[in-house]
Amino acid sequence: MKSLLGGKGANLAEMSSIGLSVPPGLTISTEACQEYQQNGKKLTKGLWEEISMPGMMDTVLNLGLNDEVAAALAEKSGERFAYDSYRRFLDMFGDVVMGIPHSSFEEKLEKMKETKGVKLDTQLTAADLKELVKQYKNVYLETKGEEFPSGTKHNTATCLYFCLTHHLYLRPLIQRRQLQLAVKAVFESWESPRAIKYRSINQITGLKGTAVNIQCMVFGNMGNTSGTGVLFTRNPSTGEKKLYGEFLVNAQGEDVVAGIRTPEDLNAMKSCMPDAYKELVENCEILERHYKDMMDIEFTVQENRLWMLQCRSGKRTGKGAVKIAVDMVHEGLVDTHAAIKMVEPQHLDQLLHPQFENPSAYKDQVVATGLPASPGAAVGQVVFSAEDAEAWHAQGKSVILVRTETSPEDIGGMHAAAGILTARGGMTSHAAVVARGWGKCCVSGCADIHVNDNDKVLLIGDMVINEGEWLSLNGSTGEVMLGKQPLSPPALSGDLETFMSWADEIRCLKVMANADTPDDALTARNNGAEGIGLCRTEHMFFASDERIKAVRKMIMAVTVEQRKAALNLLLPYQRTDFEGIFRAMDGLPVTIRLLDPPLHEFLPEGDLEQIVSELSSETGMGEDEVFSRIEKLSEVNPMLGFRGCRLGISYPELTEMQVRAIFQAAVNTNRQGVTVLPEIMVPLVGTPQELGHQTSLIRSVAKKVFSEMGSSLSYKVGTMIEIPRAALVADEIAKEAEFFSFGTNDLTQMTFGYSRDDVGKFLPIYLSKGLLQHDPFEVLDQKGVGQLIKIATERGRAARPSLKVGICGEHGGEPSSVAFFAEAGLDYVSCSPFRVPIARLAAAQVAV
Amino acid sequence: MKSLLGGKGANLAEMSSIGLSVPPGLTISTEACQEYQQNGKKLTKGLWEEISMPGMMDTVLNLGLNDEVAAALAEKSGERFAYDSYRRFLDMFGDVVMGIPHSSFEEKLEKMKETKGVKLDTQLTAADLKELVKQYKNVYLETKGEEFPSGTKHNTATCLYFCLTHHLYLRPLIQRRQLQLAVKAVFESWESPRAIKYRSINQITGLKGTAVNIQCMVFGNMGNTSGTGVLFTRNPSTGEKKLYGEFLVNAQGEDVVAGIRTPEDLNAMKSCMPDAYKELVENCEILERHYKDMMDIEFTVQENRLWMLQCRSGKRTGKGAVKIAVDMVHEGLVDTHAAIKMVEPQHLDQLLHPQFENPSAYKDQVVATGLPASPGAAVGQVVFSAEDAEAWHAQGKSVILVRTETSPEDIGGMHAAAGILTARGGMTSHAAVVARGWGKCCVSGCADIHVNDNDKVLLIGDMVINEGEWLSLNGSTGEVMLGKQPLSPPALSGDLETFMSWADEIRCLKVMANADTPDDALTARNNGAEGIGLCRTEHMFFASDERIKAVRKMIMAVTVEQRKAALNLLLPYQRTDFEGIFRAMDGLPVTIRLLDPPLHEFLPEGDLEQIVSELSSETGMGEDEVFSRIEKLSEVNPMLGFRGCRLGISYPELTEMQVRAIFQAAVNTNRQGVTVLPEIMVPLVGTPQELGHQTSLIRSVAKKVFSEMGSSLSYKVGTMIEIPRAALVADEIAKEAEFFSFGTNDLTQMTFGYSRDDVGKFLPIYLSKGLLQHDPFEVLDQKGVGQLIKIATERGRAARPSLKVGICGEHGGEPSSVAFFAEAGLDYVSCSPFRVPIARLAAAQVAV
Repeated sequence: MKSLLGGKGANLAEMSSIGLSVPPGLTISTEACQEYQQNGKKLTKGLWEEISMPGMMDTVLNLGLNDEVAAALAEKSGERFAYDSYRRFLDMFGDVVMGIPHSSFEEKLEKMKETKGVKLDTQLTAADLKELVKQYKNVYLETKGEEFPSGTKHNTATCLYFCLTHHLYLRPLIQRRQLQLAVKAVFESWESPRAIKYRSINQITGLKGTAVNIQCMVFGNMGNTSGTGVLFTRNPSTGEKKLYGEFLVNAQGEDVVAGIRTPEDLNAMKSCMPDAYKELVENCEILERHYKDMMDIEFTVQENRLWMLQCRSGKRTGKGAVKIAVDMVHEGLVDTHAAIKMVEPQHLDQLLHPQFENPSAYKDQVVATGLPASPGAAVGQVVFSAEDAEAWHAQGKSVILVRTETSPEDIGGMHAAAGILTARGGMTSHAAVVARGWGKCCVSGCADIHVNDNDKVLLIGDMVINEGEWLSLNGSTGEVMLGKQPLSPPALSGDLETFMSWADEIRCLKVMANADTPDDALTARNNGAEGIGLCRTEHMFFASDERIKAVRKMIMAVTVEQRKAALNLLLPYQRTDFEGIFRAMDGLPVTIRLLDPPLHEFLPEGDLEQIVSELSSETGMGEDEVFSRIEKLSEVNPMLGFRGCRLGISYPELTEMQVRAIFQAAVNTNRQGVTVLPEIMVPLVGTPQELGHQTSLIRSVAKKVFSEMGSSLSYKVGTMIEIPRAALVADEIAKEAEFFSFGTNDLTQMTFGYSRDDVGKFLPIYLSKGLLQHDPFEVLDQKGVGQLIKIATERGRAARPSLKVGICGEHGGEPSSVAFFAEAGLDYVSCSPFRVPIARLAAAQVAV
Repeated sequence: MKSLLGGKGANLAEMSSIGLSVPPGLTISTEACQEYQQNGKKLTKGLWEEISMPGMMDTVLNLGLNDEVAAALAEKSGERFAYDSYRRFLDMFGDVVMGIPHSSFEEKLEKMKETKGVKLDTQLTAADLKELVKQYKNVYLETKGEEFPSGTKHNTATCLYFCLTHHLYLRPLIQRRQLQLAVKAVFESWESPRAIKYRSINQITGLKGTAVNIQCMVFGNMGNTSGTGVLFTRNPSTGEKKLYGEFLVNAQGEDVVAGIRTPEDLNAMKSCMPDAYKELVENCEILERHYKDMMDIEFTVQENRLWMLQCRSGKRTGKGAVKIAVDMVHEGLVDTHAAIKMVEPQHLDQLLHPQFENPSAYKDQVVATGLPASPGAAVGQVVFSAEDAEAWHAQGKSVILVRTETSPEDIGGMHAAAGILTARGGMTSHAAVVARGWGKCCVSGCADIHVNDNDKVLLIGDMVINEGEWLSLNGSTGEVMLGKQPLSPPALSGDLETFMSWADEIRCLKVMANADTPDDALTARNNGAEGIGLCRTEHMFFASDERIKAVRKMIMAVTVEQRKAALNLLLPYQRTDFEGIFRAMDGLPVTIRLLDPPLHEFLPEGDLEQIVSELSSETGMGEDEVFSRIEKLSEVNPMLGFRGCRLGISYPELTEMQVRAIFQAAVNTNRQGVTVLPEIMVPLVGTPQELGHQTSLIRSVAKKVFSEMGSSLSYKVGTMIEIPRAALVADEIAKEAEFFSFGTNDLTQMTFGYSRDDVGKFLPIYLSKGLLQHDPFEVLDQKGVGQLIKIATERGRAARPSLKVGICGEHGGEPSSVAFFAEAGLDYVSCSPFRVPIARLAAAQVAV
């Protein structure tokens, strides 16, 4: 009932029903939230519950406190407890509701500890805390020019309206009216920019709203028999089967989560409150068996009694996810089908992230060490705010976001950063949890560093690091290095190999790779690619000076004879390249696309005069002639211009040369014992006539080459479907094509009318206004572009039942798009070699 | 049975069955031709018939002649007749089969007449003709280095293979084997480049092939009781009900048709062979009553006996077509529905062609006068070959094609020319007939001129006119003027008005116009437009210096405030323009499209430095700032970039200003008693979210303006459908739109992936290779783009039954496209004011 009760509410109910101790409470449902949003933001009396977006909506503990209530509480439970709660509330309320920086309060606390000569908060006395409450109230006056709204007469309703939020740890003294205001405030926070941004980044759609949980407050700060902690039932970084958590005596939950004080590990709890610890360990086992998953648990001990406050599926790194999935299969907890669903395709992305080439080599450049909060390696330029991180990233820079500690406001910048470094906070601090969820490198709690946000300076001892300087982070060891350390790509082995073999057994969709060189082809093969779905021939043209010069001669040619002469120079290069690729893909199909880009892309860069003189000397043509050729090549909209099969139709000798090179290479390598399966793909086809023209040319060249070489082999001829019209007349096109490969990049450009090169002018605005859910170049637009894919697949297969259908756009490596392609009945996806494992997993998951 | 027997065969059979004298014969059907093409070019014994493409396939008369046959013929029918036929055959066979220029023979003939001191061919004696036969044979030897293949032993089969063509006027001595070869040759000519080009220009598709007619030869050159002629049953230029034709005594048909000798009018026949003439007049009446049409007739008189050789619907000018249709309704021959089908929409194009502003004013510049072969006025630069005409036209030049006489090889150049001037040939010469069919201005038989193709010089007396000099032609008077005479637009009146009123009664599809100014709006209204379907607001931006400066300030604005300030300057201009348009269209809907083009289109032209300094002084911004703004505006593919509603969404203040101007203008003119029906159209919508954004903005501005002005009126908000995705999700978009207007220009660009600005690089190649039948920007691509139109119309109406659906691309004025839109159930088309009558007629024809 997660969609109705929210993640937290559903799990609280679940824990309660299987007999664990949960503080009594109730849940207002997401439907109530939806009704609220739809009914002009008016509350309807309703159902009850809450949602799983930790920290994304405001939480305020101890709410309802003021001088009067604190005095009453002191009388009941002791002064130290009452004023510790009160000063916490003043801090949290000031920060979340009034916009007073958390650090303003923290300063006072630090100073107080210094004055009193103590190290820990818990060493402060009741009197100290009472004094702190006074000082905290002064902070309100100094910062906001008004008093903390404490009086019951003065403004109580407003105060509660703002301070109550979606984790409502209720005190008995909260009134019905206050509760209504509080619920309203939680509902409002569903539409806050922060919440919207979080949903957008995490591609969360289709939810009704947030649920609201109302529970009795249990107190972890009720002396030394109380405490609070969080844990994962297994190590979320490595997947190791061992409780992994943190605990603080005499504290409330936010002390651990927000990373305000560096907590102790669970052994501290084991020794000081063994009964509660034993129950906790048992609960963890019960929960893992119940949920068949690694769980993330929050708990509080009040006067030696354990209370379970939250449980949910634990976020984990890719490495952790794979090990947990594999272990749980071996433990008999789940089968391989279930295991496949326990690893997100994005998780693999982490595992496929680069690592440092040689960790031992940089040891002398390590300038600080923090906690290994989220594994992987990151190299980037230092920035000190989330805004800067986003702005620099938008300029194409790789950045390391350095913060004293992160907060939910930093989400955007954290996402933009290559890595995150924080001075404070443990392994379960905000920075660590969020970074692990994204598989982003993070070093947290790095006490060696001091962050000065105002001057944008990072101090490590005497060392001063300014904004823009390069830093390297090792999230697996916690090491921080100066400068740019060399990175190396990761490998598929061990648990991952086992896991991927299950995925391969389960999936139906084939996974091929886009690869243009023998090296790429090998990488693809190592990553499990079952062939090459897209080999772009144009990249080969740039591979050397001689090649590009020959290409330019071909472009500059005025007569067919000149063009043929230039093409003859290119033939041996192309043949050699194809031979290498065929060898690397021995036994697997290699789909080669004929020349696609507009010819002017091969001209030199620079200003016109320079280009003309360069080309004139390269080709031996007069400058006037060169200039006039260049003028003729220039285009208003090159994306929709003279490219694709339009080239090969206008200059049949071009297609002839490429096809000749392919078949000569195929026969040559075949003679060496290599199994060659060439598939020739005609790009940018919009009509059956175009494809027919190229197909007969290709077949006649093949015949000629086979007869010249006295040897033949079988091959396929097919086409890209990347022009909307091609999808619409796919039945006619299929009569000429043995396979279709959707070029979703171009198809998206034309279906939306978006030039990928120019979309930056309005796409960010569209995304921020919610006019688009995703960048359609990242996540396939299923409604529009997807509709064309379905139409073309259906009609194509109707005309030619044996038609092979795949996709070779960048969407081929995006999990939700891969799922769509599998459901649409495609035979294969082809993506970058690096994303092949992701596509393999996504394909398996949709098959489960 | 035209599709089976071909036009000519069917009409021959028809004439024969209603009792007219037709030389006995038979017809091989088009199906036989189709089988021939499909069965590897092998003849199957089959059915019989012929096709209506006069002169498009080779005709050779008198075939089968050689020395031996000529001698035999002379014995039977006299020497003069035999050798006249023989020398004709040598000329025609040399020209058509052997590629020897017709002029090589003509020279000999001219010289012979000069030597003999005679003016007419018929004055030459049998001996002269016998001598000519010798000379003609020498031409073969001189030109081709081989003898005329005359011997029966020598090569007869090959000779017949080439010389027999689709008009087979059979001599009895042609053998079965020769006949087979001849039929084969005709079938082959179906796929000749010339025939393919003719079909392409005239948009003839779906035919099976050509039929072949085999008839006994009748001889018009059998002395002075014989002759040949062609006629139209009414005047094809003016439509006047009076026989209109030409006749030559003692001649064969090609003498008249090819314009080799200038023929006499029909009175010549009336006096010299009154019986045959009387029968001819009766036949004409019979045929008009039978076919209910104006007929084009070919006949021959052999020894006073009339033979009908061909009859078909007569080609006519637009003026002629309208008068004939209106007259025939008044004569009770046809009803208005049938009359509507008697005028081609293209015919109206002629009537709407420009005329000379003041024909009397240029009288002193008339340098020559020929026959008024095809009416209208043309101004262009002189060229001397069809190839040049095509090449110059491709460069955007207006050309006058000047030829001694035209032949089927000139088709392409004739089509490309603005006007045609020939030195020889009558009103039914090749040039005249073809030009009238296209409504192209033509002056034929202009004896005052001498054309020297080799030197590319036109001589008129002593005057020398070189290639590239300007000439003006009046096709209605036959006058030829030097230089560029001013042209004026035509008007709808008289017969045309009557005719158009019938069209309007019959059609269901509304016809609106694309008009951006009050003047255009008036023209549109005068041409019968029922509203404005597309008013582009951007053209107003260029109307004055102040306007464009304000636009540029708006574009250069960095802050919203700066942009708003600039927009405020534009508001009054836009309001005034809209007021003028609303007044002009009182009582009719005016569809206004919000700003569409990319902003950089409004920047000044020139090199960058110049633009920057100009804008800097215009806006008062620093040059660096201007430069950086311009850089940001530049786009790789502007067609797919920051334009359309993407502008209004990114800069809502822009939409706000435009909508404010529209509603202020609407309320103002409404107060003056004008009935204002504004419809606001959002361009380049791809998602319902985009339209929703703009729709609510528009409605809120409307509300504001109405409340400010204390007056309101009803209006519509709709969208262009011009992005493929919009068509695919039309159901969702219709929820936000009250009307759809297909922008078929952009929809064609994106559906095909063709940039209209760049398509010139490959489209001509596609058309010439037959990969495309038409330029899809001229004639709607019904299969692809049309499919999207059908999908969007269906889905849009399903979601909103009251949805108004129309089109405002240039296809709105193209007859075959209009027919498609009517059949697809659209409510209206909108086209250029000039093409409104064409659309009205096309819409009526599809309704009949």
